[in-house]
Amino acid sequence: MAFQSKKLINDPNDVVTEFIEGLVETYPGLQHLDGFPEVKVVLRADVSGATYNKVAVISGGGSGHEPAHAGFVGEGMLTAAICGDVFASPPVDSILAGIRAVTGPMGCLLIVKNYTGDRLNFGLAAEQAKSEGYKVEMVIVGDDCALPPPRGIAGRRGLAGTIFVHKVAGAAAACGLSLSAVAAEAKHASEMIGTMGVALSVCTLPGQVTSDRLGPGKMELGLGIHGEPGAAVAELQPVDVVVSHVLNQILSQETDYVPITRGSRVVLMVNGLGATPVMDLMIAAGKAVPRLQLEHGLAVDRVYTGSFMTSLDMAGFSISVMKANDEILLRLDAPTKAPCWPVGADGNRPPAKIPVPLPPSLSGKRDETLSCPEKLSSQGYILEVAIEAATMAVINLRDRLNEWDSKVGDGDCGSTMFRGATAILEDMKKYYPLNDPAETVNEIGSSIRRVMGGTSGIIYDIFFKAAYAQLKANSILVIAPLHWAGALEAAIAAVSKYGGASAGYRTLLDALIPASSVLKERLAAGDNPLDAFVLSAEAAMAGAESTKHMQAQAGRSTYVSADILASVPDPGAMATASWYSAAALAVKRKYQAS
Amino acid sequence: MAFQSKKLINDPNDVVTEFIEGLVETYPGLQHLDGFPEVKVVLRADVSGATYNKVAVISGGGSGHEPAHAGFVGEGMLTAAICGDVFASPPVDSILAGIRAVTGPMGCLLIVKNYTGDRLNFGLAAEQAKSEGYKVEMVIVGDDCALPPPRGIAGRRGLAGTIFVHKVAGAAAACGLSLSAVAAEAKHASEMIGTMGVALSVCTLPGQVTSDRLGPGKMELGLGIHGEPGAAVAELQPVDVVVSHVLNQILSQETDYVPITRGSRVVLMVNGLGATPVMDLMIAAGKAVPRLQLEHGLAVDRVYTGSFMTSLDMAGFSISVMKANDEILLRLDAPTKAPCWPVGADGNRPPAKIPVPLPPSLSGKRDETLSCPEKLSSQGYILEVAIEAATMAVINLRDRLNEWDSKVGDGDCGSTMFRGATAILEDMKKYYPLNDPAETVNEIGSSIRRVMGGTSGIIYDIFFKAAYAQLKANSILVIAPLHWAGALEAAIAAVSKYGGASAGYRTLLDALIPASSVLKERLAAGDNPLDAFVLSAEAAMAGAESTKHMQAQAGRSTYVSADILASVPDPGAMATASWYSAAALAVKRKYQAS
Repeated sequence: MAFQSKKLINDPNDVVTEFIEGLVETYPGLQHLDGFPEVKVVLRADVSGATYNKVAVISGGGSGHEPAHAGFVGEGMLTAAICGDVFASPPVDSILAGIRAVTGPMGCLLIVKNYTGDRLNFGLAAEQAKSEGYKVEMVIVGDDCALPPPRGIAGRRGLAGTIFVHKVAGAAAACGLSLSAVAAEAKHASEMIGTMGVALSVCTLPGQVTSDRLGPGKMELGLGIHGEPGAAVAELQPVDVVVSHVLNQILSQETDYVPITRGSRVVLMVNGLGATPVMDLMIAAGKAVPRLQLEHGLAVDRVYTGSFMTSLDMAGFSISVMKANDEILLRLDAPTKAPCWPVGADGNRPPAKIPVPLPPSLSGKRDETLSCPEKLSSQGYILEVAIEAATMAVINLRDRLNEWDSKVGDGDCGSTMFRGATAILEDMKKYYPLNDPAETVNEIGSSIRRVMGGTSGIIYDIFFKAAYAQLKANSILVIAPLHWAGALEAAIAAVSKYGGASAGYRTLLDALIPASSVLKERLAAGDNPLDAFVLSAEAAMAGAESTKHMQAQAGRSTYVSADILASVPDPGAMATASWYSAAALAVKRKYQAS
Repeated sequence: MAFQSKKLINDPNDVVTEFIEGLVETYPGLQHLDGFPEVKVVLRADVSGATYNKVAVISGGGSGHEPAHAGFVGEGMLTAAICGDVFASPPVDSILAGIRAVTGPMGCLLIVKNYTGDRLNFGLAAEQAKSEGYKVEMVIVGDDCALPPPRGIAGRRGLAGTIFVHKVAGAAAACGLSLSAVAAEAKHASEMIGTMGVALSVCTLPGQVTSDRLGPGKMELGLGIHGEPGAAVAELQPVDVVVSHVLNQILSQETDYVPITRGSRVVLMVNGLGATPVMDLMIAAGKAVPRLQLEHGLAVDRVYTGSFMTSLDMAGFSISVMKANDEILLRLDAPTKAPCWPVGADGNRPPAKIPVPLPPSLSGKRDETLSCPEKLSSQGYILEVAIEAATMAVINLRDRLNEWDSKVGDGDCGSTMFRGATAILEDMKKYYPLNDPAETVNEIGSSIRRVMGGTSGIIYDIFFKAAYAQLKANSILVIAPLHWAGALEAAIAAVSKYGGASAGYRTLLDALIPASSVLKERLAAGDNPLDAFVLSAEAAMAGAESTKHMQAQAGRSTYVSADILASVPDPGAMATASWYSAAALAVKRKYQAS
């Protein structure tokens, strides 16, 4: 199976120069040499070769490994990056131009990944530069652990571990060390690193057709970073198993790729290959650390997780393990302005997790005697009457609510509201602190949250929590009608804010908003509060009925025709108007009876 | 077409908790609450709620957007991130736990992307926290510009622009501002941003089958970040066209999504959606900046390019444009320890490119009279004899070299060497400065580079450049036999280093290394130099012949059977031995004749 590659690019031949243009737009600390298309060199904007008084650190190679290498240019890391075409070594003249642009009297170090083309082109440039009077050293990095220890010219490939060498050399150079000292540190670092990769897909070269070399359910182990086949193809395994296998291969005492033995200190890099989400990389890092610690007996001093040395859009990652000591950690931790070196990996490692904070205990705040039903205050008694009436109204309305909802929604409005009302009624009898109206309102929210799922449960919970917060703000036990009106207003505001609805959206707000307006108005006019509540309840019911003529703005009702909507009111609004009315009427009746 | 998703994960139900474990391993400045699997909260390791004396800035939402939101936790940005399951809002109790863990007396700001689930869950948590005595404010971000200006509950979705709000709020909080001041800055920032996305693929939910909704050659415009379909499907276009379309839509004066008009200052974010290589993102950024400047008349103050708010492994990007002023830039530029906020985007923007440095002029160094053939010194004359003999030997050997190479390589060794030899001969007659042997050796390298491609051309060029550098190090015009021996040794070392070969690898080094050894040995023994060179040449020829018994270590010869290899010597080694011998014999003959 092969499919046409899809990429958000322009001309495939321009990808590298256009990448560099975007890079320097993004990072004002970087510049490029004006030599496109042949010369593709990114360099520090604050360095001018002739006068640069530190060792210049230069790397590069074929493109397609972004952010490597240009993203690692910056004070404390690379001084310049030489970019070839995709997966092709840069030509000698490009490398020479980069050397000339950033190399001062202290000389330059070339850090080269171990590929024949890179070795030869950088090598020739080095010899040419020497013949021009520059001091030049070169360190070749081959950190690959995919294949049996090789003999011959090819040797181990340079992979993501090269980034560590850039950092060590860059930090050493920033300290003002001599060329030979910087080169010695880089060479030593390069010998401490082992890397191995695993891929789920092949990368797509710009403008080319992708061959799906890997079938479904397969992964490739020990791949390179140029789309070349891996050392082995295997069935896809859980990442735990993959990480374990890769670490075993890197750290194998038989192959002796890296001088790491039990008790060593190491740093870890989990490097995405271009199309691997951060989530997956972090999962691998989280699995690798305990394995290194417990199975291999190593101390893991630093973890670097991200996409540093990629292979275009390949899905997969490589793992690098580097033997560390205080000197290497000093170099890795040293500050750098290179934009793509990972920050935040240094510093002391505190415990990974801390306990979930406990909710503030309510026991101290609540007067237990208040919740004893034998001693109900008159206010508590009224509250009980209101709650009982409101919940019974909802309970009795179950079937009609379901019927309406089956026309305009998913048909369960009545059942959901029934669950909430029943829970409130039961919980009230068990433990509601009725003599403390604010706390009782809070408990109503908790009862609802316990049994009512979905949006309506959260909306009602928000309603009662906001009312509670408003009542608590007054910090009094006897709550006047004006305070109830204020709580209703605050609760409506919260529901509108978090739910996103306003008047006319065909929701419960179309019952509540007129109820709140009328209540405020009548209380302000000096009406008897019992009458004000009843008038307010009538406004709620009228508002709920008026939802018939409204177009829904959210939920399933938005897909229902206007004809059908006009035949039924919004069930949520009707439920609200019903319990509100029932409470208002019951309270008035009770007062009149007493 | 649907194919089984491939991901490097373990149990799909554990991806979020395992992500968090890897995250805190990577970044020691982060911790998580010990409440897995329900409570998934990442917080600053240096903040303890009860005593925290600044406004806590909290965000979060469904997971699958990594590094958002947990990667933006750190001093100067988020104080905590609440992680839901993939694409699912976190539950109220998680959010509450996060609020309690980091909120001190200054209160907390919740920054919430505009989705119903997030609004309700964060809203309820806010109300609950208020009822517990916390000061809480909430800002809802809806920066989406994909759809016509909406009415109704849904509104504009929160996308990558939310990251800007995190940064502005976090920086304001770090300054010690009050909750209302921090909330006001966050709200203002949220109203300045427009975002729109484009995708080439659908994302794969962990453990699920990917439906290939998008056919080949198609892209989706105006997508969300939860795998929901985009506003439109279109034919894939060059990224220039895509960027232009997206910017036009964001900045359209008709929809009035953002208050940006000609002359405004803006910042730009190009955000990868999870599987988009850095190269592609940078290309888009590089195209967006001039378009904003030239077509929309805007000043682009900052560019942020990377993968910040992703959609699992979706391929594509979103572009965000935010209206900026000095206050907003101050917040964006403020330092932060949040590991995934992009560094290096601030600072003065120097010219993007600088001229390619010119090679050091040779005209001043070379004495023009030396290159005048009428005045050849005796040393110059000898050099001419040697070069002529060497090149003629190679020219005469063309067919035999090709014949040998056709058995063990690609059959063009003779032709390639012939080209080099012919060029040297011609160039020598035209302009070689024969009285300056070092410069002549340098010119030989240049002649070779001009006409010989491939590995052999570079190898020979390195050989002569390294010899030149060694000869130059002596800085004398008359070069003694010992200096020639030193140059040969340096040239061999360079070829071995950069080419990666050693003795016995069946290469030209198997001629050169014995030649160099014998030359050094005989000169040290006090032999007549002419005889020493001839003995050295015999060693070269014997070495070249001995390659018949060697196994190749690189190139096509590695695939050839030992039987065939034993029938021919390495053509490269034979060519080298031939020109070296021819030169040595010709020089001796010339001296004896004179």
